[in-house]
Amino acid sequence: MPLGRWSGIAHPELDEITVDDVLHALADPTRRAIIRLLQAEGDRPCGTFGLPVAASTLSHHFRALRKGGLIRQYDEGRQRMNTLRTAELEKRFPGLVDAVLANAG
Amino acid sequence: MPLGRWSGIAHPELDEITVDDVLHALADPTRRAIIRLLQAEGDRPCGTFGLPVAASTLSHHFRALRKGGLIRQYDEGRQRMNTLRTAELEKRFPGLVDAVLANAG
Repeated sequence: MPLGRWSGIAHPELDEITVDDVLHALADPTRRAIIRLLQAEGDRPCGTFGLPVAASTLSHHFRALRKGGLIRQYDEGRQRMNTLRTAELEKRFPGLVDAVLANAG
Repeated sequence: MPLGRWSGIAHPELDEITVDDVLHALADPTRRAIIRLLQAEGDRPCGTFGLPVAASTLSHHFRALRKGGLIRQYDEGRQRMNTLRTAELEKRFPGLVDAVLANAG
C-alpha cells in the first residue's frame, strides 16, 4: 500500500506518540476489539468490524486508535482501510501493548 | 496499619477493578509520579508529595489512583496516608503496571 494513500489522514510520527496516548487508546473494550480483529485477520475497511456501536462512535474510536499510534488508515477506492502499527509501537514502548491485551478481557 | 483505618474511604475490591480503570489511573504523569514516590520511599501523607499541582487537582489524582486499585488511603491522626496496592494488582493483571512504568518518562 503506497504511502500516498494515507497522506490526507493525520497520523502522529512514532516519536510524537506518548505513553498517555497509547494508554488512552487501549483503555476501551471496543478499541481493543478493533485491534484484536486486525491482529487476527489483517487490514480491513472501517465498516466491516461488526461491532455493536453507532457509526459516529466507531469513527471516534478509530480516531483515538490513530492518535495513540495503534493504527494507520488509508483509502482504497471508496473504503477507508485500517492497518496495525503495533510492530512500530513495540520499538518505542516495548511490551506495553502486549501487556495490556494479555490482561484485558 | 489496621484495616479499620480505611473503612471510611471507598476502595474497589481486587476483582472489581477493570483493566480500563488501571489504564486510566496510569495515563497521567502526575499519577505516575505519585506511584513512583510511594515505590521509592513507602507510605506517605497526601500533602507531602511536593508536586506542582493544586490541592483540588491532587485530590482528583488520588481518587483516580484509588479507583484504579493502585493505592489505598487510610487516616493516621490528621493525615491521610497513601499506600501502594501494586503487589495485589500484580496478581490480577500480571506485568501491566510494570510495563507502563517502564515505558513512561
